[in-house]
Amino acid sequence: MQNFNFYSPTEFVFGKDRENECGTYVKKYGGSKVLIHFGSSSAKKSGLLDRVKTSLQNANISFVELGGVQPNPHDSLVYKGIEICRAEGVDFILAVGGGSVIDSAKAIAMGVVYDGDFWDFYSGKSPQKALPVATVLTIAAAGSEGSGDSVITKEDGMLKRGAGGDCLRPKFSILNPQLTCTLPAYQTACGATDIMAHIFERYFTNTTEVEVTDRLCEALLLTMIKETPRVIADPNNYDARANIMWAGMVAHNNIVGVGREQDWNSHGIEHELSALYDCAHGAGLAVIMPSWMEYVMNHNVMRFAQVATRVWGCQMNFANPEVTAKEGINCFRKFLVSIGMPINFDQLGAKESDIPKLVATFGIGDGETGGFVHLKAKDIENIYRIAVTASV
Amino acid sequence: MQNFNFYSPTEFVFGKDRENECGTYVKKYGGSKVLIHFGSSSAKKSGLLDRVKTSLQNANISFVELGGVQPNPHDSLVYKGIEICRAEGVDFILAVGGGSVIDSAKAIAMGVVYDGDFWDFYSGKSPQKALPVATVLTIAAAGSEGSGDSVITKEDGMLKRGAGGDCLRPKFSILNPQLTCTLPAYQTACGATDIMAHIFERYFTNTTEVEVTDRLCEALLLTMIKETPRVIADPNNYDARANIMWAGMVAHNNIVGVGREQDWNSHGIEHELSALYDCAHGAGLAVIMPSWMEYVMNHNVMRFAQVATRVWGCQMNFANPEVTAKEGINCFRKFLVSIGMPINFDQLGAKESDIPKLVATFGIGDGETGGFVHLKAKDIENIYRIAVTASV
Repeated sequence: MQNFNFYSPTEFVFGKDRENECGTYVKKYGGSKVLIHFGSSSAKKSGLLDRVKTSLQNANISFVELGGVQPNPHDSLVYKGIEICRAEGVDFILAVGGGSVIDSAKAIAMGVVYDGDFWDFYSGKSPQKALPVATVLTIAAAGSEGSGDSVITKEDGMLKRGAGGDCLRPKFSILNPQLTCTLPAYQTACGATDIMAHIFERYFTNTTEVEVTDRLCEALLLTMIKETPRVIADPNNYDARANIMWAGMVAHNNIVGVGREQDWNSHGIEHELSALYDCAHGAGLAVIMPSWMEYVMNHNVMRFAQVATRVWGCQMNFANPEVTAKEGINCFRKFLVSIGMPINFDQLGAKESDIPKLVATFGIGDGETGGFVHLKAKDIENIYRIAVTASV
Repeated sequence: MQNFNFYSPTEFVFGKDRENECGTYVKKYGGSKVLIHFGSSSAKKSGLLDRVKTSLQNANISFVELGGVQPNPHDSLVYKGIEICRAEGVDFILAVGGGSVIDSAKAIAMGVVYDGDFWDFYSGKSPQKALPVATVLTIAAAGSEGSGDSVITKEDGMLKRGAGGDCLRPKFSILNPQLTCTLPAYQTACGATDIMAHIFERYFTNTTEVEVTDRLCEALLLTMIKETPRVIADPNNYDARANIMWAGMVAHNNIVGVGREQDWNSHGIEHELSALYDCAHGAGLAVIMPSWMEYVMNHNVMRFAQVATRVWGCQMNFANPEVTAKEGINCFRKFLVSIGMPINFDQLGAKESDIPKLVATFGIGDGETGGFVHLKAKDIENIYRIAVTASV
């Protein structure tokens, strides 16, 4: 196990109707003038935004609003948010939505207190301070409600890049599983896939002697495998939604990923797909992640056999562990298909002919990207090519 | 799943040699005059205390010292610590030791800023503020390094009671598994038993639909079952120590226990043993917890069968799940014996004739104590009686 620091100071406020307490928590964490940041009209239509505003009003907290965050959130709205916050003297940002809204809120929070261009933090600069951010989560997926990470797309060149720092960790996050019951099945499945990817990106590691985090990762995967089909079958299953929502947070605040080298190449390779086609991140991961697994499996067959037996319930083939390893990957693809996810380019709406462009935008040049297996441009191309025709 | 709040703001600083950074972290969290609180002479002899002091000096932080904390820490030393802190203007308490030292430090931290008797907080009063506390952990066991809890024994009547509140959560906790390598096997095993008990007390619940926390609890139990025998066989196995140390924190900061009713009766029933005989808390739990399981098993046989199959690897007896459930409890006892723990009164040094006294001190009167199964005085007596002659 490697040395590490783990710090997750966010207060999680979990359960039915908890959004009605958001005024109390904004006050507790020092906010007096709030930017309510949200996405599409669904937060308005559902009445969620009204409940949030009522709660703020009841706590005598004033607010301004900025909606319109789109999936794969763009830099242009971030610039607008920064302007509004400065003009209005906002001292607290409340994201009401999913990962895109939260990520956009974090970008604004950094930008408001920074003299330069906020994009600097998505180009390698480490953020040291930000306005306090909090969230009312509406989809279990990105884990941004408990992480210090943010991903934004720069419209000029459609570059999708990440930033991270402890100052971006939300002060509090309200997780009400009821709010996720109205999600379409496709979005629910995309979210579940994203959560599973966050676990796998931690699971596949070259660090040995990490039994505790291995087992915790497996626990979360087992949960997702049990609960996701239940919410696809019955969108109003509160308890299944609740299990997924907590799993989504635990999967990404890094408590199950500490002390080990991680591999985020599937996320990186996917980001090019969602940037180019504006597809859902989770759907892109369903196409890329099993293809990446297939490509790197021989690097450590026994690790793939471990997840196949412990998580997917495969019989271990002791004579030929590779068979078990492959069976596990196939189980993953079958699972993705069963919850309505695409698993190849065609199903996603991606084009084989775009592969050179995807590889070029990935921007690796002659270098390589680290992790479980170090990848060069040719490897990334090969993974895209596996994804073109993947099937079960 | 029930509604809940989860808040664990402690920064965990994990790995080899990390105690040398404690000055940096005390400064980061605002300390300028520190009380170093510790236990026996082992922290001195091992050189740990010197390394801590050097680190504080390097950060220009002044300090006073108070050693002498004993297992099952007493109120008398807490009063002394409060006096010292007030006289010396201490603004930060650094516990260097295990759960007893940390719990004593938390009690002092509450007492310093409180006008009344600190024991009020161990008699039901909720603490609202305390001096900041941090820890350098030397044994994986109590989980106090990541919890807001503290247990103190009042010498007058040998009452062992708990207090809890978010203000008691450590600002930072330094977890260096190397520091645990010099522990005698018996203490290591006591610590492991305590960790497993913390998981079981959360696992046995009447709350349904808690798959994610069930699976996380099972993940930690599986880790303990794999890693504990390795450190008993080889005390210097750093990686096994590291897995146990992180499991010990995760087991008790409540991330695996949220959203469910818990049952802490085994801890309560044990506390009377360690208060009366001054035995190690973990050893007392090894005697009490499986006896409690035996006594309450029929309340939910399938839950016991679940842990037997998922954690202990028993074959499920579908015709008669009770057989599997009992087998799981027996596996637990066998495991405890294998790591050198006592499992009955005789092995612990407890006397059957003391049972009426133990029940009386438990102080339940005609009432009952809640949890998975509600217990009356007669039930507690029955559990002690099972523990008298328990065997494998």
